Amino acid sequence: MEKISCPGFQAAGVEANIKKQGIRDLGLIFSERPAKVGGVFTRNLVQAAPVVLDRELIQSGQARAIVVNSGNANCCTGVQGMEDAKTMGQSVANDLGISSDQVLVASTGVIGAPMPMDKVTDAIPELVKSLSPNGFSDLALAMMTTDTVPKLVSKQGKINSNKFTVTAVAKGAGMIHPDMATMLCFVCTDIDADPDYLSYALYMACERSFNRITVDGDTSTNDTALILANGFSGVSIENSIHKASFQGVLDDVLLYLARLMVKDGEGATKLVEINVSGALSDGDAHAVAGTIGNSNLVKTALFGGDANWGRILAAAGRSGVYLEPDRINISFNDVLMYHNGMGCGPEAEKIATIVMKKPEYAIHVDLQIGNGKATMYTCDFSYDYVKINADYRS
Amino acid sequence: MEKISCPGFQAAGVEANIKKQGIRDLGLIFSERPAKVGGVFTRNLVQAAPVVLDRELIQSGQARAIVVNSGNANCCTGVQGMEDAKTMGQSVANDLGISSDQVLVASTGVIGAPMPMDKVTDAIPELVKSLSPNGFSDLALAMMTTDTVPKLVSKQGKINSNKFTVTAVAKGAGMIHPDMATMLCFVCTDIDADPDYLSYALYMACERSFNRITVDGDTSTNDTALILANGFSGVSIENSIHKASFQGVLDDVLLYLARLMVKDGEGATKLVEINVSGALSDGDAHAVAGTIGNSNLVKTALFGGDANWGRILAAAGRSGVYLEPDRINISFNDVLMYHNGMGCGPEAEKIATIVMKKPEYAIHVDLQIGNGKATMYTCDFSYDYVKINADYRS
Repeated sequence: MEKISCPGFQAAGVEANIKKQGIRDLGLIFSERPAKVGGVFTRNLVQAAPVVLDRELIQSGQARAIVVNSGNANCCTGVQGMEDAKTMGQSVANDLGISSDQVLVASTGVIGAPMPMDKVTDAIPELVKSLSPNGFSDLALAMMTTDTVPKLVSKQGKINSNKFTVTAVAKGAGMIHPDMATMLCFVCTDIDADPDYLSYALYMACERSFNRITVDGDTSTNDTALILANGFSGVSIENSIHKASFQGVLDDVLLYLARLMVKDGEGATKLVEINVSGALSDGDAHAVAGTIGNSNLVKTALFGGDANWGRILAAAGRSGVYLEPDRINISFNDVLMYHNGMGCGPEAEKIATIVMKKPEYAIHVDLQIGNGKATMYTCDFSYDYVKINADYRS
Repeated sequence: MEKISCPGFQAAGVEANIKKQGIRDLGLIFSERPAKVGGVFTRNLVQAAPVVLDRELIQSGQARAIVVNSGNANCCTGVQGMEDAKTMGQSVANDLGISSDQVLVASTGVIGAPMPMDKVTDAIPELVKSLSPNGFSDLALAMMTTDTVPKLVSKQGKINSNKFTVTAVAKGAGMIHPDMATMLCFVCTDIDADPDYLSYALYMACERSFNRITVDGDTSTNDTALILANGFSGVSIENSIHKASFQGVLDDVLLYLARLMVKDGEGATKLVEINVSGALSDGDAHAVAGTIGNSNLVKTALFGGDANWGRILAAAGRSGVYLEPDRINISFNDVLMYHNGMGCGPEAEKIATIVMKKPEYAIHVDLQIGNGKATMYTCDFSYDYVKINADYRS
């Protein structure tokens, strides 16, 4: 794997034995200088202790580090859970020689089990010692739960011919549903910007990426996206042209990770883009795309390679938005399947079945009653999704 | 199987070879005298031709017969589909010697394939000849698609010491979601009542039965519930006491069939009752119960026998209603699993795991902030659900 880094940042991932032996499960990001911070959090009313803590901490607008563990979500763990989250932050702060209110905390894994704090605190000295500019891939490994591949990416942009970098790591394979940040994602950048703007830019990028993907329609109690900006590049976001340049790169980074999450969706074998156009509004198009992308019947048909446009149409019909069934066109890539209120026949289905053998393809649904459009990324629904989730804690 | 009938009604189910040879796939109900009719239909905007036709026909308030086929939904079949639905009704009317506007039509099966009308019309003479007071079990067989058991029941009630009967057949195992009648269900009764009341009583009974069950969150394009009342018993529904007596029996009949559908849910191995209490309103409780009952993560945990109350809590948290996570109690039958913001420990989980081995059990979620309550019936989510739906058309 190519080395991924971000100027002025270090990262690490070590084995704390929270999960099985020989697997990284504790990670750290550290900014060499004070950084501005922004965040986007789950909208679920049940929230893990670290989410509650981070919401509070980012109010200051500044942070230096993020410590993260996998294997335990530290959620529904009562007063002790909040103590444990604070202890994690405090231990890292001590070893880094910074204030504990500069350390954000994130956890992912099983809900409701107490945090194995001895293991966590024992591993923190080694974690801090392992920090390195090239440590992002170890960090990405340490964040994985049911993920089968680590998820990280780095992209560069230019403002006034000055280069800046956006590097991000994420984890997410299940409990993926378009409702705010639906996983863990940490973004490091060497620009300088004000914290309110950072949260806004991150929110917008989430809307265009993580809020466009669905794996199983469930949302998590731990979903957190954080951005740290340390100003290392000397590039400062000061006007709307700068904002557009930065947003473009940030959107690209998050969309890359979002697509990676769907491809790595629990048990997924296909990445399918659902494009809805011709709706009365973008909101309507989003509702139709979401209902299709989230339908178990559509997703099992995608797994079976069955060009069952009837299920797509039925899902559109129950999405709650106005549509006229007889005007809708449905295509698999460029193969028209449904037109003028009827299927396009067995020949079209035969060609569509070939399309459906590809690892990635698009389903186009044109409602032909307006200009609203939206795209959603989904995956198929396989035996392995059931296996992974029936056995998750065992 | 015990013989199920309803005074003044005859039924039949025959093999028309719409599906495979040797399987009944064409059914008929006939009322020996003119009957009043009521109906409840899918809210999906994509509606099969028979649904459109029946909506129109029941405006007259009268009907004598219902013809139904499985194996083909006659949906998204354009102008020809409506012609075919009318032809089905006309052929039955001819053989029965009644007017075609007295024959309702229903279809269930694959969407988007043209109706094999030759097979249907060829089989209608035999279908009509097979009519018999004891034909309801053949009819129930002829309505099955992915159902593994025929679904029918008959119950009796009394009004002013006069006996009346409510007999119903249904089909449904997938595409089951609480949004209006989510399957086919035909009710025969020997009371007399006015058609508007019949539709209302049927609607209320659907609310209390079919709208409380979920298998996969999808709703169908063909969902139809019909009720025929032929007055054979001499019992007439004239006041609110009569209505309460009749509604009680009708509710029982539909709830029995609804529970049967969940038990027979595609791939289901468990029937689980989700009881939510202590919500701010019944509507809130319904939303929480529905979100839990419909969560893929909860349903795969039910399949795995994993007492994962964290997923139940997480589903409640995203249901969109107000709740206070620390006040919630979660029990499996009478085993308290989550209390005071924390899990009740490994001992409780061990006992709950025994509960989860039962074929039927209840999950109680008490929000403790109000008096709203609701019950939803769901099933687990197994490999076989994926198998059945990935292969459905092949």
